[in-house]
Amino acid sequence: MQSPHSCNAEAALPGSVAPRYAGDLMKTTTPDTLISPADLLERLDWRYAVKQFDPTRRIDESTWSALEESLRLSPSSGGLQPWKFVVVADPTVREKLVSAAFGQTQVRDASHLVVFTAKKDFGAADVDAHIRNVAAVKGVPVESLAGLRGMLMGGIVGAKDSAGREAWAARQTYLALGVLIASAALLGVDAAPMEGFVPDQFDTILGLKELGLTATVVCALGYRSETDPYALAPKVRFGYDQVFLHV
Amino acid sequence: MQSPHSCNAEAALPGSVAPRYAGDLMKTTTPDTLISPADLLERLDWRYAVKQFDPTRRIDESTWSALEESLRLSPSSGGLQPWKFVVVADPTVREKLVSAAFGQTQVRDASHLVVFTAKKDFGAADVDAHIRNVAAVKGVPVESLAGLRGMLMGGIVGAKDSAGREAWAARQTYLALGVLIASAALLGVDAAPMEGFVPDQFDTILGLKELGLTATVVCALGYRSETDPYALAPKVRFGYDQVFLHV
Repeated sequence: MQSPHSCNAEAALPGSVAPRYAGDLMKTTTPDTLISPADLLERLDWRYAVKQFDPTRRIDESTWSALEESLRLSPSSGGLQPWKFVVVADPTVREKLVSAAFGQTQVRDASHLVVFTAKKDFGAADVDAHIRNVAAVKGVPVESLAGLRGMLMGGIVGAKDSAGREAWAARQTYLALGVLIASAALLGVDAAPMEGFVPDQFDTILGLKELGLTATVVCALGYRSETDPYALAPKVRFGYDQVFLHV
Repeated sequence: MQSPHSCNAEAALPGSVAPRYAGDLMKTTTPDTLISPADLLERLDWRYAVKQFDPTRRIDESTWSALEESLRLSPSSGGLQPWKFVVVADPTVREKLVSAAFGQTQVRDASHLVVFTAKKDFGAADVDAHIRNVAAVKGVPVESLAGLRGMLMGGIVGAKDSAGREAWAARQTYLALGVLIASAALLGVDAAPMEGFVPDQFDTILGLKELGLTATVVCALGYRSETDPYALAPKVRFGYDQVFLHV
């Protein structure tokens, strides 16, 4: 976690305001799409970790597209996005993953399945890919970003050993998972975040090793089955004073 | 990450449907507070990692209360909530934290500051605290949850060494950070997630060591300054094909 340099958890960089990255929406300065605090909490309370998905219900294309975009837009340390999101649709592969997930049927029955993966041995080549992207988006020469590159190399790549960098990348994928879970709840899509799987088996089944990736966490998404008994279970959280400290 | 037992990333347990935990909202089965995919993306695109907060603008009480509740409602592996969220209001402490955060002024100027902390050496006592809470919420005897306790002890506590458990707990705090960042964007609150600080110094300044906690990541929240040049910078993300794999 420790960084020798000042390093904001998302790259927000100086430079001329260039055309937006293709695919990004316009940034608005006057938000007119806000929701109320009460509505937000109703959505977050509505969600739960689904045990039984309705295998007949599919997430429609525009909703799914927004959920994918919520992942792409997720912040990450240094803006480095040390991840790939693997969307598994192939039923045969899904079935194999069930076996590598202790038989949990959400992996098979959910409308969509995302396997979060972190880059292993994140290094200079990854930083350079990001720097090239920054240069392209901002319309500035790569050379002008030498200071940023040095900060990211020193603050993240050079400050951690290989295991530390993998752990750092894995943490970023959980941040993206949090964005996805909240986004899904807002759109009325059910989700089941899952750690109960064997990463090494997932890596093999999905061919991740050859890509320098490793599975960190899984999220099945779709719609709860009407017969899922967990849908009506009370949410179990510690009380406010047990999780908040005020200084 | 590897768990020898099937273990969903949030505890959703069988048992009789008992009264909701005090403070929870009613769970609705017919969501009427959904937002559109386009509105969600507008909110996520609006957000950015703030560099300069407006020190004169405060988050109002009901909005802040909802943001705290979004943290409390965040899912976690096994539902174990291996965290505490430290909300730092004291200006003197904030000033000390600026020094331990490489001078980053968001730590001082933001309306609110949350230091995410993970439990160190998460163990049987922590599982038991959760089990007692489950029993209380569900109105069942602790003894009836022996199976759940065994699964959590075997799948998480027993499956990892001390460093592995701390890393696991730290990842959960990033999930909660993701939920908070998305929630803030939906409510029109700006945020600056930050890894650029010295955890050991934060732990000392906030008295976390005595509590068995360690700082993992920080989020400053409030409202962007009108003069923050980063507010108008284009968002830098890899293209869709660079972060998604389809299987």
